[in-house]
Amino acid sequence: MAKPHFLKHFLEPESVALVGISRRTGRGTFNIMESLMDYGYKGIIHPVNPNAKEILGAACLPDIDSLPVGVDLAVITTSRGLVPEIVRGCANRGVKGIIIVTEGFDEADERGKNLQKEIDEVAGKSDTRILGPNSIGVVNAFKSFSSSFLPLPKTPAPVALVSQSGGFFEGFPNCPFGKGIDLGNTGDIDFTDALACLKDDDDIGVIVLYAEEILRGREFVNTARQAVQKKPVLVIRGGRSVSGKKAAASHTGSMGGEEALYTAVFRKAGIYQVDSILDIGDFAKAFLHLPPFTGNRVGIVTPTGGGGIISLDAIEHFGFSPSALSTEMTDNFDGLFQPWITIKNPVDILSSAMTHGFKNVYQKVLEAFFRDDGTDVIFAVCGSFTLKTIKRMAIKYPAKPVVSWVVGADQVDIAEKAEKFDFNPYYPSPDSALRALKGVRRYYLARERLLLE
Amino acid sequence: MAKPHFLKHFLEPESVALVGISRRTGRGTFNIMESLMDYGYKGIIHPVNPNAKEILGAACLPDIDSLPVGVDLAVITTSRGLVPEIVRGCANRGVKGIIIVTEGFDEADERGKNLQKEIDEVAGKSDTRILGPNSIGVVNAFKSFSSSFLPLPKTPAPVALVSQSGGFFEGFPNCPFGKGIDLGNTGDIDFTDALACLKDDDDIGVIVLYAEEILRGREFVNTARQAVQKKPVLVIRGGRSVSGKKAAASHTGSMGGEEALYTAVFRKAGIYQVDSILDIGDFAKAFLHLPPFTGNRVGIVTPTGGGGIISLDAIEHFGFSPSALSTEMTDNFDGLFQPWITIKNPVDILSSAMTHGFKNVYQKVLEAFFRDDGTDVIFAVCGSFTLKTIKRMAIKYPAKPVVSWVVGADQVDIAEKAEKFDFNPYYPSPDSALRALKGVRRYYLARERLLLE
Repeated sequence: MAKPHFLKHFLEPESVALVGISRRTGRGTFNIMESLMDYGYKGIIHPVNPNAKEILGAACLPDIDSLPVGVDLAVITTSRGLVPEIVRGCANRGVKGIIIVTEGFDEADERGKNLQKEIDEVAGKSDTRILGPNSIGVVNAFKSFSSSFLPLPKTPAPVALVSQSGGFFEGFPNCPFGKGIDLGNTGDIDFTDALACLKDDDDIGVIVLYAEEILRGREFVNTARQAVQKKPVLVIRGGRSVSGKKAAASHTGSMGGEEALYTAVFRKAGIYQVDSILDIGDFAKAFLHLPPFTGNRVGIVTPTGGGGIISLDAIEHFGFSPSALSTEMTDNFDGLFQPWITIKNPVDILSSAMTHGFKNVYQKVLEAFFRDDGTDVIFAVCGSFTLKTIKRMAIKYPAKPVVSWVVGADQVDIAEKAEKFDFNPYYPSPDSALRALKGVRRYYLARERLLLE
Repeated sequence: MAKPHFLKHFLEPESVALVGISRRTGRGTFNIMESLMDYGYKGIIHPVNPNAKEILGAACLPDIDSLPVGVDLAVITTSRGLVPEIVRGCANRGVKGIIIVTEGFDEADERGKNLQKEIDEVAGKSDTRILGPNSIGVVNAFKSFSSSFLPLPKTPAPVALVSQSGGFFEGFPNCPFGKGIDLGNTGDIDFTDALACLKDDDDIGVIVLYAEEILRGREFVNTARQAVQKKPVLVIRGGRSVSGKKAAASHTGSMGGEEALYTAVFRKAGIYQVDSILDIGDFAKAFLHLPPFTGNRVGIVTPTGGGGIISLDAIEHFGFSPSALSTEMTDNFDGLFQPWITIKNPVDILSSAMTHGFKNVYQKVLEAFFRDDGTDVIFAVCGSFTLKTIKRMAIKYPAKPVVSWVVGADQVDIAEKAEKFDFNPYYPSPDSALRALKGVRRYYLARERLLLE
């Protein structure tokens, strides 16, 4: 049996000490104990504060020495000068993991850098592992645990974030995170540690990194390659621009590095680098819903000619091509189209639908693509009312991926109408859909490459 | 006084003849008369059908010769073989405009091409103007008129679409169209005619083109330049890829053309070419809400360090740069930040907000940027609850543009919460926001250039 990874103490602690927790509670106080209880945590909480008898109904401990031995996790929010001594105390009491939320270390002034050195020394000498400093810590919606002082979504989504910023714990568009680890200044615990944990985590199907700086390059690549063989790893780089890189130095003390180097590292590891946080939700939706595929021949069904054309433009742009229609396939359409129409891919169903019924024609063309050996992926241009038909087909032919572009202005209305048909992923534009498909295809190609190497 | 443009007969007809209208009504029949009445049209409708006495309560005319003289508009939906004769009849009865919905002309076979020639001859010889064939026609939400057989949004949005595909009448994401003109096969009426009409239309603040092929290049550029001096013109090109170009030929009979040529034409005209339909709604939102600007120095306020860094990356990528903070400005923040923090742009307010209150700090930093002469544009990273504060500031300082990136996973929830604060445009990611800002800035720069030339 695999040895449990040390990050288990952070993500699923049975007991947690909150060191430096304030007596002030309520709106605007950012009290971690209060937000933890609101989040639904069921484990043991030890507030540590020499000036309080109890906080939110729990007896306060006056100092670290009063902690029971072997607490899973301590979360430190004191002023920075007190942190090294508390860390030493925690290590002495056999605390398994420490999150240092406090700021003002490597990312700040000389005094901060010296304080961080003291902390690093403790980490080097004890079995206690340290996340941060300057970290919001962790969130785990699967176990209702979070050290965040801000309220977070409670969605146990199969997507994990490893980040150098806790601000992203709130999720990227259409992409809540079921688990999150904020590395902060990346002292003791780094990206490699987080990947080593999440690669074996069955709750998680997609891993997302927000990275300003990657340390331990070789170990990172090795661990990432193991992870990518099991599930996709995506990265959004922060600090790619001149001013962004400079800002990263004062955000997490990151030194940045050459962009070309990062690109090479990610490529070698099979990690998919995205340009926008929007791409991450788009990718995750496709990956989590679609069967595996590596082919690039796309069958397109559309009720709008122009929609078919800009779909083709996106299909080519993202490395796909329209599948060639076999005679066998077009023979299925006998009598559906006007005799002077040459049936081509994209199959424009509008005029046929006006005579033979929209749903009837749409389904016939869709099914022909599902049954066609020359088509690897189906791209369905449609309105939200057609998602039901597409879902039924996707269930009937589970081995072939289908994605939709739902045409229309009111995407909020579309999302609401489409909610129950969100089995087959749908997108607001052909480029969002094809960008996601490209990412998924690249993942399966990268995985094949890694398995062969 | 300016002479009313001939497209007025299409967009605001007082009377309309529906030629070839079916007796069949109800779901799935795509009856234009029914959808026109549902759309709320208040003008006179003359159904023309030799086999019906009345349709939907209106007396049917047996043929074109029975039409009163001088009807504004005729919409033809008969089989293609009948179209040339009907067009001749309409011209004889002094019909001012004709929409040919019927397909199967230049975009189809030899017979279709010959039929289109016959139509073109009538257009050449009479004052009757013809839209199409193979056109869904027009939509005008301001006058509740549409020739579309599909139900359309009734939003009188100040954005007009001129398209070679009626499928886009439903709108692009977050961008309904208040007026739309489908050129279809672009016979008699083309992009130049449409621009000449819409440039003087006070209902319309932004013009969007979906173009597979632009004819009359010189006239197009001249008219577009006049339009761009009044309002932005955006274009999405269809048929940029090899397969897309081929498909365009059978969609609207378009011959396509070299991409570099189109780029040059659009640049000369001051037209902004976008890559994605998503960009159009993003642009329109920024343009319609923001005061004019041409500077590129951005002030950034953020409650998340990582959010500030990826914002900087987007800011540089889209040709902007972070504004330098003056001493005068940072002096405003005395006592708000820890002494060991060097205040930089982006201004990361999180730790200060935890001590001094979120709203208080956010507003102070925001206002400092509004008052700062070295800042041209403000970029506000926030949650949806902060949009209210930003709106208040935007109203107080109306001369300086501010846009927001609302951080979070549930964009539907954000849209619902933000609805009443949608005064200052907000976006789901820094790149969407900055791409839109770049477009708006380029518009004002292009307009200045055109006014000088």
